[in-house]
Amino acid sequence: MTTWLDQVRFSTEGLIPAIAQEASTGQVLMVAWMNREALQLTAAEGYAVYWSRSRQQLWRKGEESGHRQRIVEIRLDCDADVVLLRVEQHGGIACHTGRHHCFFRVLRDGRWETVEPVLKSPAAIYGE
Amino acid sequence: MTTWLDQVRFSTEGLIPAIAQEASTGQVLMVAWMNREALQLTAAEGYAVYWSRSRQQLWRKGEESGHRQRIVEIRLDCDADVVLLRVEQHGGIACHTGRHHCFFRVLRDGRWETVEPVLKSPAAIYGE
Repeated sequence: MTTWLDQVRFSTEGLIPAIAQEASTGQVLMVAWMNREALQLTAAEGYAVYWSRSRQQLWRKGEESGHRQRIVEIRLDCDADVVLLRVEQHGGIACHTGRHHCFFRVLRDGRWETVEPVLKSPAAIYGE
Repeated sequence: MTTWLDQVRFSTEGLIPAIAQEASTGQVLMVAWMNREALQLTAAEGYAVYWSRSRQQLWRKGEESGHRQRIVEIRLDCDADVVLLRVEQHGGIACHTGRHHCFFRVLRDGRWETVEPVLKSPAAIYGE
């Protein structure tokens, strides 16, 4: 039997990019990667689970920071190789820098300008 | 001199994922890839230019279909390895299937359900 997971086209490394978009505001919060297990767990648990490429392990978003992402909807694109998560962002902070979202730099006059404030310092978030 | 392009972390294949988000609605339209030249041209020309991995060439989005994407803003994420384009979508169609955007399938009850209509047939768009 073909399941919904079999229809997803993971890369040769077994990964797919996943975009987390805030359901209430439409803001693109972050992009991370998922393997098949991460996507399966995300659907099963109702909270975003990614694959950390640097740590080479499953990453339950928010397990340290509390900034979990509750799944509102999971979408798949036309080529079946990108996933879009519509989420509710706990704590209002998606980025490890302590900002609301990761896309806090805008290209202006040939340079990247930071335009979003740090809401909580990483030291305070991660208790370092 | 370090330019804004030098700060972008392209993959070992020289690519970076680029998300196109409709500026007026916040809708995530599509995800494609850019190499350094595509990103440079996107900023210079003010319209989205991607790198087609299947054709291995620059792809000026909309050059066949007319569905160009005017750049409103270019953003970079915290890890400098994903670009977010806020765009104005010409013709209201971003997807090659003739739909408004590429994320037209939603996971419901263990299957991908198509929830967005085809606005214009691909044959009509591409004149086949």
